[in-house]
Amino acid sequence: MFVARVTGSVVSTQKVGTMTGHKLLIVEPYRLDAANRDQLVTTGRTFVTVDTLGAGIDDMVLVVQGSSARLTPETKDLPIDAMIIGIVDTVSIDRQKVYSRQD
Amino acid sequence: MFVARVTGSVVSTQKVGTMTGHKLLIVEPYRLDAANRDQLVTTGRTFVTVDTLGAGIDDMVLVVQGSSARLTPETKDLPIDAMIIGIVDTVSIDRQKVYSRQD
Amino acid sequence: MFVARVTGSVVSTQKVGTMTGHKLLIVEPYRLDAANRDQLVTTGRTFVTVDTLGAGIDDMVLVVQGSSARLTPETKDLPIDAMIIGIVDTVSIDRQKVYSRQD
Amino acid sequence: MFVARVTGSVVSTQKVGTMTGHKLLIVEPYRLDAANRDQLVTTGRTFVTVDTLGAGIDDMVLVVQGSSARLTPETKDLPIDAMIIGIVDTVSIDRQKVYSRQD
Amino acid sequence: MFVARVTGSVVSTQKVGTMTGHKLLIVEPYRLDAANRDQLVTTGRTFVTVDTLGAGIDDMVLVVQGSSARLTPETKDLPIDAMIIGIVDTVSIDRQKVYSRQD
Repeated sequence: MFVARVTGSVVSTQKVGTMTGHKLLIVEPYRLDAANRDQLVTTGRTFVTVDTLGAGIDDMVLVVQGSSARLTPETKDLPIDAMIIGIVDTVSIDRQKVYSRQD
Repeated sequence: MFVARVTGSVVSTQKVGTMTGHKLLIVEPYRLDAANRDQLVTTGRTFVTVDTLGAGIDDMVLVVQGSSARLTPETKDLPIDAMIIGIVDTVSIDRQKVYSRQD
Repeated sequence: MFVARVTGSVVSTQKVGTMTGHKLLIVEPYRLDAANRDQLVTTGRTFVTVDTLGAGIDDMVLVVQGSSARLTPETKDLPIDAMIIGIVDTVSIDRQKVYSRQD
Repeated sequence: MFVARVTGSVVSTQKVGTMTGHKLLIVEPYRLDAANRDQLVTTGRTFVTVDTLGAGIDDMVLVVQGSSARLTPETKDLPIDAMIIGIVDTVSIDRQKVYSRQD
Repeated sequence: MFVARVTGSVVSTQKVGTMTGHKLLIVEPYRLDAANRDQLVTTGRTFVTVDTLGAGIDDMVLVVQGSSARLTPETKDLPIDAMIIGIVDTVSIDRQKVYSRQD
């Protein structure tokens, strides 16, 4: 899994039938700032994920990829390869907090 | 999943039997322009996908990869690892539209 | 899936039992020439694939990756992650042919 | 699989139901130092994994990705794509130890 | 699949129960030397694989990734994502041998 920030959304009206009603969010994976190791920075990459947890813009989330994205009751048998499995409260690296949702 | 532009097509007459009759489109994944974050730009990569939605050249589409490409009635049990699951109407980033099909 | 050129082959006599008798080809994925968008160029990467279609050196082929490589009668239950599912006749980008097998 | 160092952890209270109670660790994949081939160095990438072995910060671990992360009794049917399957004692390259847990 | 050289091994005593007794080898994927196309060179990447064929240090091997690593009798249901499915005798590119085990 990877930690990513929710930055946007996708609207698609013409789609595979089973996808109707599923919220599609754009996320950007974050990685540790290599120089100072004290904050998370964007990788500049972009993924589209399904969200069932009510995540919002700017939330940091935990994203699962591949067939495991189908391993929840809401996404069973959907043709998806990425979903949000958690909204992140804190990320700690080297015993220091590098992200806190409350900040 | 990722957002990609349909840029072309592939013709293959000599192929695995179950692939007969399936439309093969070339797509280029797009990512957010890192500098200004106000438009989508090509990653320069190229994938081949199966299309069952009638997508056309220049359409922006949503592509799923991996085993989930087999999770639709039309693609069940096909030896494919990528398919178009939606034609994209709009993409919004940071609460701004960075792509609209109508433009 | 991706478009690749067949450039070589691998011989392995000491192998997993079920792999006996399966042809192993080396392929190089091709991508669109980013500058002129009028031809396909090699990515410089190398994969090994199983071939059941009789592809030959220099053929441009369509390669599927992952578990879907096991979704044909000949490759069912094989420990493989890539196979050739079609020999490519033509590739068109931006409504122009960028590859034709006859050339 | 790949060798990675445990560098941190993720806390998420709002998550998919089946993920409750599973420890989430941040790991950084390591690779061989290309110049001298005598030590492992970080790749600078970051993954989130599930841990059931009691790994701690600074431990070097073995991480499996993809659907196989679900192939243990504790992770069966979880929506995860990475887990720790071993805590590494030693890594030897070119017949020399490049990592030892005791050092 | 990809061609890789066996360069080392991993020892892990504290691991997932089903992994007991399985040999873990470090492999470095090789690619064609882009300039002269007459030899294989390391990509500098490192993977850990399961070996059931008795491969040794410096052997060139064929590695399968993903769920297909579980498709042999010895690895069925193991939480692994890479295994050695063959020891390579020769690799030929552009009708020339670029690797031979006997050299």
